[in-house]
Amino acid sequence: MASKPLTVKEIFKDYRARRTALINALTRDADQVYDLCDPERENLCLYGHSDGRWEISLPEEQVPTDIPEPALAINFGREGINRCDWFHLVAMHSDSWLLSVAFSYGFSLNTNKRHELFNLINNLPNVAEVVADYWKPHANNRVGKSQENPQVSDIVEAERHSKSCRR
Amino acid sequence: MASKPLTVKEIFKDYRARRTALINALTRDADQVYDLCDPERENLCLYGHSDGRWEISLPEEQVPTDIPEPALAINFGREGINRCDWFHLVAMHSDSWLLSVAFSYGFSLNTNKRHELFNLINNLPNVAEVVADYWKPHANNRVGKSQENPQVSDIVEAERHSKSCRR
Repeated sequence: MASKPLTVKEIFKDYRARRTALINALTRDADQVYDLCDPERENLCLYGHSDGRWEISLPEEQVPTDIPEPALAINFGREGINRCDWFHLVAMHSDSWLLSVAFSYGFSLNTNKRHELFNLINNLPNVAEVVADYWKPHANNRVGKSQENPQVSDIVEAERHSKSCRR
Repeated sequence: MASKPLTVKEIFKDYRARRTALINALTRDADQVYDLCDPERENLCLYGHSDGRWEISLPEEQVPTDIPEPALAINFGREGINRCDWFHLVAMHSDSWLLSVAFSYGFSLNTNKRHELFNLINNLPNVAEVVADYWKPHANNRVGKSQENPQVSDIVEAERHSKSCRR
């Protein structure tokens, strides 16, 4: 999206595109993301762009940025945890980031419109839920969580591949 | 707060304390914040802590951090804008940050509880609204915005000091 999203509909569209990009990064393209996030490299971020692309790159050089930056140095957070837990950790960071981006646009709306925007966002399973469900056969400690939100199973069931955390 | 907030009540308490800290930084203590944010210094962040203190400091060295980091290099964003506009810009970054911190805790809640948490947050004027209202006599371009949300005027009226943007 070239211009800044202004209405609830535009902001939610932006949110959804970024969310899809991040979900793809942490499920379908997870092997590639894992390889790119080499802990020997400089501190990297996972971006979900509003055109649906994900990107692993260094943080923006031009600071302060117009929209919030995602968690810095996700590639440094891999020590002592398995692949699934790392994907889940990055997913949780991604959810916080997505919300902060949406409301960096959404805070200019009035209270009712913000409420409407949050409802739209909250009615979708968040990235961490989708990622946990995708890797579920190998992430037993998160089974309980996705049971709290039955929508997750419905949505992800069709595309689950029972991927292994280990390669 | 020493331990991680888990319930809606605890997360909202944490949010409110951080929000108060940031409001104090950008209204009551704004001169001090402005002086600390020298553009000649390294890239600085404004933190609102859960004990109600604000802090201007370098970003966390240990990355990735447990909770999201505030906007980086707010001190570099002062060129070409007046004091009020800069306070308002930092306030907007602060609102996005506060929300991302609250939901870095809140995403582990179920959908209904997240909704409850957002409602509590959304019923308070956000930092940018309070800050705009505080500096209102000198921020004519934001008068329209605070009129959208009458709560702001009610809350800030009592403590407004009609401060000048210029020193």
